[in-house]
Formats: sequence, C-alpha cells, structure tokens
Amino acid sequence: MQVEIWTDVNCPFCYLGKKRFNDALAEFDGRESVSVTHRSFELDPTIPAGTSGSVVEHLAQKYGRTLEQAADGERQLGAAANEAGLEYVTSGRDYGNSFDMHRLLQWAAQLGRQEQLLDALYVANFAEQAPLFGDDDRLVQVATGAGFDEAAVREVLNDPSRYADEVRRDEAQAQEFGVGGVPFYVFDRKYAVSGAQSSEVFAQALAKAWADRPGPTLIADGDACGPDGCAVPQN
Amino acid sequence: MQVEIWTDVNCPFCYLGKKRFNDALAEFDGRESVSVTHRSFELDPTIPAGTSGSVVEHLAQKYGRTLEQAADGERQLGAAANEAGLEYVTSGRDYGNSFDMHRLLQWAAQLGRQEQLLDALYVANFAEQAPLFGDDDRLVQVATGAGFDEAAVREVLNDPSRYADEVRRDEAQAQEFGVGGVPFYVFDRKYAVSGAQSSEVFAQALAKAWADRPGPTLIADGDACGPDGCAVPQN
Repeated sequence: MQVEIWTDVNCPFCYLGKKRFNDALAEFDGRESVSVTHRSFELDPTIPAGTSGSVVEHLAQKYGRTLEQAADGERQLGAAANEAGLEYVTSGRDYGNSFDMHRLLQWAAQLGRQEQLLDALYVANFAEQAPLFGDDDRLVQVATGAGFDEAAVREVLNDPSRYADEVRRDEAQAQEFGVGGVPFYVFDRKYAVSGAQSSEVFAQALAKAWADRPGPTLIADGDACGPDGCAVPQN
Repeated sequence: MQVEIWTDVNCPFCYLGKKRFNDALAEFDGRESVSVTHRSFELDPTIPAGTSGSVVEHLAQKYGRTLEQAADGERQLGAAANEAGLEYVTSGRDYGNSFDMHRLLQWAAQLGRQEQLLDALYVANFAEQAPLFGDDDRLVQVATGAGFDEAAVREVLNDPSRYADEVRRDEAQAQEFGVGGVPFYVFDRKYAVSGAQSSEVFAQALAKAWADRPGPTLIADGDACGPDGCAVPQN
C-alpha cells in the first residue's frame, strides 16, 4: 500500500501529524507492506528565499491578531506536540521559504533516506532555538547532522534547478487533488485524510485503505511472458 | 498520473511493449504529468544466479518443442520487434537469473535514471549478440555504457542485500494484484493492461485512466495549515 503525505517544514500540524501517523503505522499489522512518501507542498511560496522572520510576529501581522494571541497559538500547538511526545519551542521560532528544503527532501527520497532528513528538519524548526530559514549553512548543518554528505547537500542547494521539477510535480498533483492545506495523507490514491488527526483516526484510515486496497481493473489483456513462457504464436 | 510497469529483462514482450507504450506516451497530451516506474518481476526466479543458457534450447526443453519450433518463435518475436522499430537478435540469445538486474534497476530508479538502465539492458539482451546473463563484468559493461559509475555498479552487485527488499516488495505487490505475466501496466492503481499491446491500445488506456484519474475520497478532515494559516484554536 502506498501512502503519500503532502507536507511543509513550516507546518506545525505536519510535525505533529507525522508523529501521530507513525505511531499508528507502528501498530499496524500490514506495516511491512506500507510504503510512505513525503510530498512537497509550500505553505507560502511568496516568502522570499534567503530570509527568516519571527513566526509569532508573522502570524499576528498576517491574520490581524495581537502578538499575545499569536504567541498563545504557538503555546497551544506546543502543548499538543508535547502531548504527542514531541518537543516544541513555543517562542522564537522562525519561518521562511521552504522550496530548497523540498528540493533536498526530493533528493533524500531518491537516496532512500527522506524520512531521516524530514525528521531532522522538523526537529530543527520546532524543537531547537536556532533559526532554520534563510541560511544555507544552517540547512547543511541539519542535513549533515542527519548523516548526509556535506558536499552532496551543498551541490543540491547550489543548483536551484536540481529536484525543482519534482517539487513542482508534487505541488501540481496536490492542486489536482484539491489539497488546500497540509498535512494531507493519500492512501493508494483512493482515500485521503486531511490534517493532524489522532493516531486512532490514522489507524482507522490505514485499516480502511488496507481492506479496500485496489486491485486495478484489467482493461486490456494480451501477449505476455509468464512462468509458463511467452505467448508466442505456435505454427 | 502514475504508471507502474512490471517487467523482466528476460521478457521479449516487455521489450516490445516498452517501445509501443513509449510511442503512445510520446503522443499523449498529458505526458508531462505522467510518471512511469518500472517494477520488478522475475519470470523464472528458479534459474541459478551466475549461469547463462541458450534461449532457444531452454524454450524447446521447457515446453516440449523442437529446436526449430523454438527458433521460429524467436523469429516471430524478432519480426514484431522490427515492425515496432526495434532491433532483435533472432538467434543465439541467452537467458538467466534476473534478480541482480532488478536490484540494479531499483538502484537506478533512486538515481532518477531507471529508464536509461532498462533500455541498455533490453538492448544488450535483445539486440546484441554478446551474452548478457551470468557475468557481472558484462552487466557492469552495459551499465557503464549507459552512463553509470563502474564502482557504484559493482558496489550494488557485490552486496546481494542491496535493493533486494525493493525487488521483493514489487514482486509481492504483483502477486497481490494477481499478475501472472509481464509486461503488466498499472495506471494510478485503478486500471491495468496486460501484455505488449499496440500503441493504439496503450493510447486508449492512457486516455481512459487520465479521464478517470482519481481524486481520493476524503475520509477524515481536521487541523491543518494552509495559505490562510493553521487551524489553531482562537481564545
């Protein structure tokens, strides 16, 4: 079974949802047959690359809240994260353009190590005080801390065309599915779950998708090779 | 749209089908949004690794045909391949265990260059006289000819555990779908086409799958972050 998860490193509910989903997956009987891919979704592609801003100030300004209201939102997210067993820095977090992170995550996926990089980026953004955005050196530090090769990371970062198509393709697919927010979970392209649900809801979704996992409908049958040989015409 | 193609390098109809499918895809309006993955299927996993045998003798023995009947089958496959614009060596081809080729193809997929390796393996098996099976040096020669790094290829070949799980997972998925032979084409896990169909049939299948490409059904909706912010409770 294929599970695709559209996500953004800027998104607290993605961080929270990943933990809850993984908790459900760890208990799921069919877990050995579940393949998980994290897909790119930029929460705000209009943020200029190379900049970093305060999350609380940004939220207050963007949504017309007071700084105290915005800070309170962060504290509530922190409480929910702590309850799920995650650390969360409730003040001083930054935000920024995530395109380069998505490119790195696409690269890591091709190395079969996407999960490690995503976890490291989430921890750096949500559980560590140091700013994460707007600074390639910090990104390199996080990636090398997760076991990636520094030169290879810099090579991807320094060429903005690398894995850009893969990011755009994920975003186009999200648009086609009508995804308006993340995290967004798609099971075998048949069922979807939006948002940081509880582990119980993820467990139910996994069970439902597993039970209904599609055998594709055969629409054309013809010359093939099998254990009994190829369908070569006999004279 | 995702197209998965279960295939084996030993399979002439896979070679033929790939050309016909690609011809259809090249003319398909939505081709920029089609992602193709080749999946592992061993036609005969019981063949010992490290051996090479004559295809014609093998077919004659296995299916109780005369050598002439088996050779005639090869000639007919060759004629069909030529008609599709492919070269085909109609005598002297060998066969063998393809597990290591599948491991290499899984590796190449993670590099984003699976297509190049598969094409090179097909050409080596079906269009060149030199034996392909049972000899790592020949595999290395084919892969480096397709632009892969010799040391990296040998590293994969020398460790039989590398990408073995990925091969097994593809094969388990094929079994779950009831795939009895290859090539086997699956469109968004919704529709399937078996065998080396004509380009017209592939074009129809692409069009049908495209028109019906699934939006997944939302089964749970909840706390998410979107362009308008995160669904943080407001006090």
